Amino acid sequence: MNLELVTIGHELLLGFTVDTNAAELARRLATVGVRVVRRSTVGDDGDAIGAAVREALDRTGAVITTGGLGPTRDDITKTTIAALFERRLVLDEDVLRALEDRFRRAGRWPMPATNRSQAEVPEGTRPLSNRWGTAPGLWLEDGVRLVIMLPGVPREMRGILGESVLPRLAERTGETGAIRSVVLRTSGIPESALAERLAHLEDAIAPLTLAYLPTTTGVDLRLTAWSNADDLEPTADRLQEACGPHYYGRGEDDLAAVVLARLRADGRALATAESCTGGLVGARLTAVPGASDVLVGGIIAYDNRLKTELLGVPEPLLEAHGAVSEETARAMATGAQQALGAWAALAVTGVAGPGGGTPEKPVGTVWLAVAVGEHVVALRRVFPGGRNEIRQRAAQAVLDLLRRQL
Amino acid sequence: MNLELVTIGHELLLGFTVDTNAAELARRLATVGVRVVRRSTVGDDGDAIGAAVREALDRTGAVITTGGLGPTRDDITKTTIAALFERRLVLDEDVLRALEDRFRRAGRWPMPATNRSQAEVPEGTRPLSNRWGTAPGLWLEDGVRLVIMLPGVPREMRGILGESVLPRLAERTGETGAIRSVVLRTSGIPESALAERLAHLEDAIAPLTLAYLPTTTGVDLRLTAWSNADDLEPTADRLQEACGPHYYGRGEDDLAAVVLARLRADGRALATAESCTGGLVGARLTAVPGASDVLVGGIIAYDNRLKTELLGVPEPLLEAHGAVSEETARAMATGAQQALGAWAALAVTGVAGPGGGTPEKPVGTVWLAVAVGEHVVALRRVFPGGRNEIRQRAAQAVLDLLRRQL
Repeated sequence: MNLELVTIGHELLLGFTVDTNAAELARRLATVGVRVVRRSTVGDDGDAIGAAVREALDRTGAVITTGGLGPTRDDITKTTIAALFERRLVLDEDVLRALEDRFRRAGRWPMPATNRSQAEVPEGTRPLSNRWGTAPGLWLEDGVRLVIMLPGVPREMRGILGESVLPRLAERTGETGAIRSVVLRTSGIPESALAERLAHLEDAIAPLTLAYLPTTTGVDLRLTAWSNADDLEPTADRLQEACGPHYYGRGEDDLAAVVLARLRADGRALATAESCTGGLVGARLTAVPGASDVLVGGIIAYDNRLKTELLGVPEPLLEAHGAVSEETARAMATGAQQALGAWAALAVTGVAGPGGGTPEKPVGTVWLAVAVGEHVVALRRVFPGGRNEIRQRAAQAVLDLLRRQL
Repeated sequence: MNLELVTIGHELLLGFTVDTNAAELARRLATVGVRVVRRSTVGDDGDAIGAAVREALDRTGAVITTGGLGPTRDDITKTTIAALFERRLVLDEDVLRALEDRFRRAGRWPMPATNRSQAEVPEGTRPLSNRWGTAPGLWLEDGVRLVIMLPGVPREMRGILGESVLPRLAERTGETGAIRSVVLRTSGIPESALAERLAHLEDAIAPLTLAYLPTTTGVDLRLTAWSNADDLEPTADRLQEACGPHYYGRGEDDLAAVVLARLRADGRALATAESCTGGLVGARLTAVPGASDVLVGGIIAYDNRLKTELLGVPEPLLEAHGAVSEETARAMATGAQQALGAWAALAVTGVAGPGGGTPEKPVGTVWLAVAVGEHVVALRRVFPGGRNEIRQRAAQAVLDLLRRQL
């Protein structure tokens, strides 16, 4: 089944918002055998919306729209498409009740009049319930044409898509997986070095395709099977082996989750001591459900005084070597082990910029340390990029250093 | 001047890559008075590319394409558009020389034969030099139609756009800044309530337009002037006033930066105590350059033992009220003031899920507390969404609570 996307909103068209919905829709539609063959973006303008949807229906017969379903004046997707199908808007009692319930539960009663219009739907439309916001999705078809209208808020779009749209489309296509792909994640190796490591496998990969996806925190490899997926797993395994110690996981695996899983398997506790990353490593770790099994906590020792008072880094050591030094990083890691009572601890201290750089310690200089039991390792890195890129790279690098010690 | 974007590539269409080029192009084109009126995305397929570009030219007369200019077999943008203009491909000696130089300098000599095809351009095309990669941009016009072809690699697209495309378009439009906009940021008020608060200004806004941009952390308002920008600032000021205490900043202002700036002005120090957010608040604060003037540090007290040992929350209090309670949140905030030596402290403790919810304290329940000097306030919120959304909302809410106390 082929389908077109029409994403709606001045914000998208003017580039104030990046259209992440379109990518997510395409990926998830592929899993039920629906292929996106074209995507169009138009502003909140009735003529433009009408033209884009009509042209897409003429070409392809099926369209998903996102955006323009909110309660405010610039939300005109529903009325425009109702006009295209020559349907009038009617009040849907079920939708109204759900909306009213939502406002009552949230203690916002009476419901604003503007929201009542969200319960009006083009006649003959099947509303798709929205448990994540106020605008229901709308499924409208007339035997020839199909339009599915979804809200533009990513969380709401995602919710309705998974709960109501994909199951119905899967029924229609009878498929549950057409294009399949596997992502292998690596850390600590540049793209070109990884490509050389994998060069000997190039012939073995076809007819699968391999894409290199470099990010701030590592290089991902996407291996895609366009039709027959039998070779996918065995080939992915060969690639994984060729990646060696740089491979750490598949798909959406986060390095923080990988580290937590290894520590959990050994029944070990972890603590953090952060200076320039200021909580970023803690935030990465605690983003993983169940992190509390392993992570006891951490200390953000931004001020040097706290490096001494809370982590026990000796003042003379700080004075002699400076806060961004191997000695301080090691003392922070062992100090965190003791102060927080954990078998493993990691520490980050560096110059994230934009100020604070010196010729010996330019912006981007970061000392990482990991203490596991009695064993302590430290590593100096100089990261490129701005403040936040340096901090993100540092957080990933210290997690990678810990992974390699486990 | 109006223009359409046609972004080309299976990766984009299938959603493996998010189309960041399109947003960047639209934003930067606006600065020279060029308005993107529609955007289309098609795969690496000659028929689809040809149809999308032809339709866009029929509608709007001017098109920028991205993608499909590389040296490999699936790069067919150039040949497709040459056919549309009925031009043959000719070898451009300057482009060839630049390409050969590039390969020689990189020590990759002789140049692969596949790259030679990149020096072929549709007859009458003006090549746009690419110092960031191998594919030159191509500027093709015939008096009626204009097509500008750019590579899909963001760094290369960005470079050619800034160096060759924008200056030429600015010459044509005679403008260096047409569409202007102001963003007002709010926190702690839902979209529909904000819309009611601003309803009385609706008539005063025209001909400017106002867009509501709800995010996980608040509602932004974008006020846009499409031609004459004289009314922009005065109208923004009136909106700001109408937003009342919910307004916290403009443009890219982060709430964390706003809070830090207020404390800095008063010469006050800040500390954090985080449980369910696990460092997220610290990471938000330290993302702001110069945070070290104000933030001394923080304690991630994930394990209850650390709430007692490091923050001095009495064990009987924890046992009586539980970790997610007003009493614990207050004790964490005042404990952080003392343990870290700061005038102000904030604390977050909650149930981020997916596990750990109870009927009295369902997933999403978060207690926030802020201590400023002798004064302590606490607030209970129940946030919707998954683990990470709850954590992000909690981080924003505690920063907002602090802002309102300052």
